[in-house]
Amino acid sequence: MSRIPQTPIVELLPSTVPFVGPEALERQRGVAFKARLGANESGFGPAPSVVAVIAAAANDVWKYCDPENYDLKQALARHHGVKPENIAVGEGIDALFGYAVRMFVAPGISVATSLGAYPTFNFHVNGYGGRLVTTPYVADREDPASLLALARAENARLLFFANPDNPMGSWWSASVVSELIATIPDGTLLILDEAYGEFAPEGTLPPLDVSNPRLLRFRTFSKAYGLAGARIGYVIGEAELVKSFDKVRNHFGVNRVAQAAALAALADQAYLRTVIGKVERARARISDIARANGLAPLPSATNFVTIDCGRDGAFAKRLLDELITRGIFVRMPGVAPLNRCIRVSAAPDAELDLFAELLPEALRAV
Amino acid sequence: MSRIPQTPIVELLPSTVPFVGPEALERQRGVAFKARLGANESGFGPAPSVVAVIAAAANDVWKYCDPENYDLKQALARHHGVKPENIAVGEGIDALFGYAVRMFVAPGISVATSLGAYPTFNFHVNGYGGRLVTTPYVADREDPASLLALARAENARLLFFANPDNPMGSWWSASVVSELIATIPDGTLLILDEAYGEFAPEGTLPPLDVSNPRLLRFRTFSKAYGLAGARIGYVIGEAELVKSFDKVRNHFGVNRVAQAAALAALADQAYLRTVIGKVERARARISDIARANGLAPLPSATNFVTIDCGRDGAFAKRLLDELITRGIFVRMPGVAPLNRCIRVSAAPDAELDLFAELLPEALRAV
Repeated sequence: MSRIPQTPIVELLPSTVPFVGPEALERQRGVAFKARLGANESGFGPAPSVVAVIAAAANDVWKYCDPENYDLKQALARHHGVKPENIAVGEGIDALFGYAVRMFVAPGISVATSLGAYPTFNFHVNGYGGRLVTTPYVADREDPASLLALARAENARLLFFANPDNPMGSWWSASVVSELIATIPDGTLLILDEAYGEFAPEGTLPPLDVSNPRLLRFRTFSKAYGLAGARIGYVIGEAELVKSFDKVRNHFGVNRVAQAAALAALADQAYLRTVIGKVERARARISDIARANGLAPLPSATNFVTIDCGRDGAFAKRLLDELITRGIFVRMPGVAPLNRCIRVSAAPDAELDLFAELLPEALRAV
Repeated sequence: MSRIPQTPIVELLPSTVPFVGPEALERQRGVAFKARLGANESGFGPAPSVVAVIAAAANDVWKYCDPENYDLKQALARHHGVKPENIAVGEGIDALFGYAVRMFVAPGISVATSLGAYPTFNFHVNGYGGRLVTTPYVADREDPASLLALARAENARLLFFANPDNPMGSWWSASVVSELIATIPDGTLLILDEAYGEFAPEGTLPPLDVSNPRLLRFRTFSKAYGLAGARIGYVIGEAELVKSFDKVRNHFGVNRVAQAAALAALADQAYLRTVIGKVERARARISDIARANGLAPLPSATNFVTIDCGRDGAFAKRLLDELITRGIFVRMPGVAPLNRCIRVSAAPDAELDLFAELLPEALRAV
């Protein structure tokens, strides 16, 4: 029996899972990881208050979520000093990136990003038939000047910029980002990924300006709030632009328990501060471990440290494989020259003890 | 500052929340509903074993989900007697409908459905610029012969059919559905929505045939398993067709706690049987209440009863509003002549007591 034709865009897409999960590696190896340091999850976990809320919310899981995410939008608006209509909530930043790309990108439309920046954003651009154009990182940072020039030259509809950045952990000051926002070309929307914003030093995130229809800022409960598995993120922007998410989003797509968890997480800012402190200490420790082994940790404003292994991508990949073989889950950037590095997530001391213990062995094996 | 142009498809879409949630009605009324009988949720809840699993999984919510949904696909494959590669898991049936539509529908492509059938499927078709063509229900059932003729005449790429049906609760025997499957036109894919399949009498669901590349069958944990708020559903089909979901899906989109909950729910078939028994009794009771008030309950193979109010849509809407005013959340079909009815979900006795108590009052007020 003949197959049904797919759309011309989808016909050409690969049927792959772009990021291999640690669970898949565990199945291949037949043994669980001892330390989960690869996905920039928060091993410090969500607040105990949040865990309690999830357990309590389990009794209500037979109900659909509130499709308007009303309570959470109210709380986020108060937290950020904006209005609820400046916020859209979605089933994780990845879903929100997908919606944003779907709103603006079609075949023939260009999208500017840095070579080696967040692959899932690129997955969505390819998925809607957009044309990705890239400019390299400069000194391990996304380069605002090059991105602006690229967006102008290619008439890009979207410009992706992460601050702080993944996978390099680098960042720019708020003044540089404000300048980027101010000089964004006519006809270009800035997709500002601030997933790691809570970890960044004071003066990294520009003040919120929700009058600007050329800017969307993406935040998540997956990182500092420790709720990666709950799939809940949000976008902040100008009201009419934000309202457009209602055109395309999966209105009942957010898990009801996740809504309750996010609300509780936001309310527990004291816990958030303890996590940020623990992440700072973990970053210092990962950096010390790297240096003790002759490797060069890069500065980081995130919950991970990117470690320059000092050789090429093949060398870093061998080191990564040796760590994985020893039960340490880490990841690495996918594109040269960033792929001379491996990326290690902040985690509690027990896991970092294992990293400290097994890194020398892995290096000897390479 | 000028706005960024959206794609021609998205530019024309409305910025609305298509289904108003009960929480929005509660906010308007300023008081909580006494009985939540409008969204075909399972007021009987998930199994106690599932609630316990959710509470335990809360400690792991800092981890992303397994993007391959491996364990759940293995369990579903065993449960259904198919292979894991015949199953795709997604963040609810709504998301899976969205992915299926995205794969096959573009401007100029026709999609056939019944006039008054599931609106969220239509939302996705409109959202990707498809051309919806419809044929009326016949005697409150979707009509396979008309749908087939429509699909042929309009060269439809997708044909939507729900068995059992929402919003009417009606159903066809497996032999009729098998005949529909066998005579689906060349070039048409059958989107078979079986969200309510667990409630249907023996002999309603055709046997699974995963060799057919023109058929996708959609199932959910939202209804019989009581996990609407968890957002987890799946699709069963031919392996290569199912693999195409990997092209477009949000790979990390399923909540990790929901994965664990679904796995536990599937394992507790004894609880599922008790829910199905309770739903049968609740349907009988809703039907008795309707008859006692001079209304005509329709036969149902679902977890709700659609009640013919015996007059036009305006009358049914007034009755619905009077029920809502009295704290009873119900919904109704959106299109004539189906909208002469209201739709009441199966629920525990306490809520049905309220329905029995307040329906006469609401009728008098109309």
